[in-house]
Amino acid sequence: MALAAAVRVPARVLLRAGARLLGAVLGRTERADGGGDGARRFGSQRVLVEPDAGAGVAVMKLKHPPVNTLSLEFLTELVICLEKLESDRSFRGVVLTSGACPAGGCLMTLTCDYRVLADNPRYCIGLNETQLGIVAPFWFKDTLENIIGHRAAERALQLGLLFPPAEALQVGIVDQVVPEEQVQSTALSAIAQWMTTPDHARQLTKAMMRKATASRLITQRDADVQNFVSFISKDSIQKSLQLYLERLKEKKH
Amino acid sequence: MALAAAVRVPARVLLRAGARLLGAVLGRTERADGGGDGARRFGSQRVLVEPDAGAGVAVMKLKHPPVNTLSLEFLTELVICLEKLESDRSFRGVVLTSGACPAGGCLMTLTCDYRVLADNPRYCIGLNETQLGIVAPFWFKDTLENIIGHRAAERALQLGLLFPPAEALQVGIVDQVVPEEQVQSTALSAIAQWMTTPDHARQLTKAMMRKATASRLITQRDADVQNFVSFISKDSIQKSLQLYLERLKEKKH
Amino acid sequence: MALAAAVRVPARVLLRAGARLLGAVLGRTERADGGGDGARRFGSQRVLVEPDAGAGVAVMKLKHPPVNTLSLEFLTELVICLEKLESDRSFRGVVLTSGACPAGGCLMTLTCDYRVLADNPRYCIGLNETQLGIVAPFWFKDTLENIIGHRAAERALQLGLLFPPAEALQVGIVDQVVPEEQVQSTALSAIAQWMTTPDHARQLTKAMMRKATASRLITQRDADVQNFVSFISKDSIQKSLQLYLERLKEKKH
Repeated sequence: MALAAAVRVPARVLLRAGARLLGAVLGRTERADGGGDGARRFGSQRVLVEPDAGAGVAVMKLKHPPVNTLSLEFLTELVICLEKLESDRSFRGVVLTSGACPAGGCLMTLTCDYRVLADNPRYCIGLNETQLGIVAPFWFKDTLENIIGHRAAERALQLGLLFPPAEALQVGIVDQVVPEEQVQSTALSAIAQWMTTPDHARQLTKAMMRKATASRLITQRDADVQNFVSFISKDSIQKSLQLYLERLKEKKH
Repeated sequence: MALAAAVRVPARVLLRAGARLLGAVLGRTERADGGGDGARRFGSQRVLVEPDAGAGVAVMKLKHPPVNTLSLEFLTELVICLEKLESDRSFRGVVLTSGACPAGGCLMTLTCDYRVLADNPRYCIGLNETQLGIVAPFWFKDTLENIIGHRAAERALQLGLLFPPAEALQVGIVDQVVPEEQVQSTALSAIAQWMTTPDHARQLTKAMMRKATASRLITQRDADVQNFVSFISKDSIQKSLQLYLERLKEKKH
Repeated sequence: MALAAAVRVPARVLLRAGARLLGAVLGRTERADGGGDGARRFGSQRVLVEPDAGAGVAVMKLKHPPVNTLSLEFLTELVICLEKLESDRSFRGVVLTSGACPAGGCLMTLTCDYRVLADNPRYCIGLNETQLGIVAPFWFKDTLENIIGHRAAERALQLGLLFPPAEALQVGIVDQVVPEEQVQSTALSAIAQWMTTPDHARQLTKAMMRKATASRLITQRDADVQNFVSFISKDSIQKSLQLYLERLKEKKH
């Protein structure tokens, strides 16, 4: 139950109008520790933030093995780190990196301004809730539909599709697919382009674009939580999730 | 008048949230009688249903010469057959086949989950109402816009475009174009993929995707019928439709 | 301030349901004076209308150097010319031509039915408001989103992108890119295709497609004007616009 329930938490931050969250890097980024200002590195092993105050950008690395499960503790850490960066005027952009992004992880990237995926069939992206026997919340649906359109979103959600790199690019759920070692630098280049427009104008524009989706979530949030809890508490759904979690554990070994 | 008025009838079934209607096969399918369970075949010459209970799928063949005109009788038969399949738990999917799908026939396929068109320039698909001097109802428009987007829908509807196979695929009004003899098998393969996701999760997802469109139709249905009847009763519109019906009759001979 | 404030004026005409405004020609069209009925030419040097009553089409040339700045006087002339054509039953279509179409000029073309851009890197199209430090009004956003979809619109608006021809075609903000000398003839061909559908059916369809966007503008227009005036009156925004206008003047020399 943690999986789907917990991903509801960060929406306050990720959908906040005008948030400075700019880019998402997907794929392995193990080798990316060379740059940044090591002295100011903060966070934890699970959410490691490498700020580059000079460039005004921070890289936030999500490492919660085996699959960056979005537990309440993990998301709380993530939100605290994001709020710390948001309140620091020297930062204008954040790059998020993860080794995995189905379901809640995918939603997190969909709220970013730009998505880069490593060109490796090991990495997929999508909202695969139906494959688990559950249903993506309406605000996952709204967000996906904003990115890839109604028809592609309906097909992706009904089938619970996880798109491999080439298909992800074609359907538009990511903006670029690049070799694994270029993922982080590509995301940093994208942020640099985003930062050429004045912050205030860009943020007001972003708020305007996302207002309908964010307002709908805020208005219906309590009802959605109630619905989700009652749905997820059903025996049949619990069994279906149990099977899924067991398959995940097997993958780990 | 029968043409456009009658197509209003089946919406209750075709837009019903969670309906198990899954795939549409367009194009000639004369040779497709080999499979299925002949013993349980039902319906009529105009709406022939070939159920395959083992696979959980039925093929519904629409044969109302010359162009599958959606008369009230024909649609009533179609709805009765669909409801019979819906109430039988052994069926999880339906393939619809037709030799023609302009206007109301096109709307019917747009409510399906997947569309396959025969690669033959004889077969076109589209909402060609303006070519007849009439206007597609708002819920035709909403449904088309969901599939191909606002801009493509505006152009298609203003011009009353009937897309031949290659253009239909490019604009996204169909999902696949295949040789004529592979249309039905392709649709059956698509249904098989759809059926890999648990029914309850997929149906709830489908209902969520289509809720706005279906609600709008239900709310404004009576007003829409009134508007349509008063529009279609005008002398100028009747003349325009009369010309169209005469051209259809000529095609028949 | 004139730039962005003034473009609010023509919306009444350009978004009017059923307007007979049909095509937009972008790019240089200096050589296009051969055709038309010279005797009935009207307007001014800045807004020159060349009617071809036989074809039912008029070409409206916008020439307000250096960049067709949408001043109140210029827009008033434009609206008067459009209304004159609208009230004359012998005209069913209008081709607009300009040498430039950022921001308000782009919005004007987005309300047309078809867009043709000269294949010359000198000509770009887009809503570049954020580059000026201002924000496109919500009805610019709605109109752009109708044409190119939510995701592409968000990226274009956040970055204030001006699309060169090839990119403009790819993102769908124009319908065709042709050699400069074929721009006007291509637009005239497009209008001829549009005019094959009966006017009343096409206009009702267009009104249906644009009703939501136009209604939202009409309902929120006063509030939007207030917001915009208060935003644009800020010292910081005035400075930002001043810089932009100075850069424009430099380009002129």
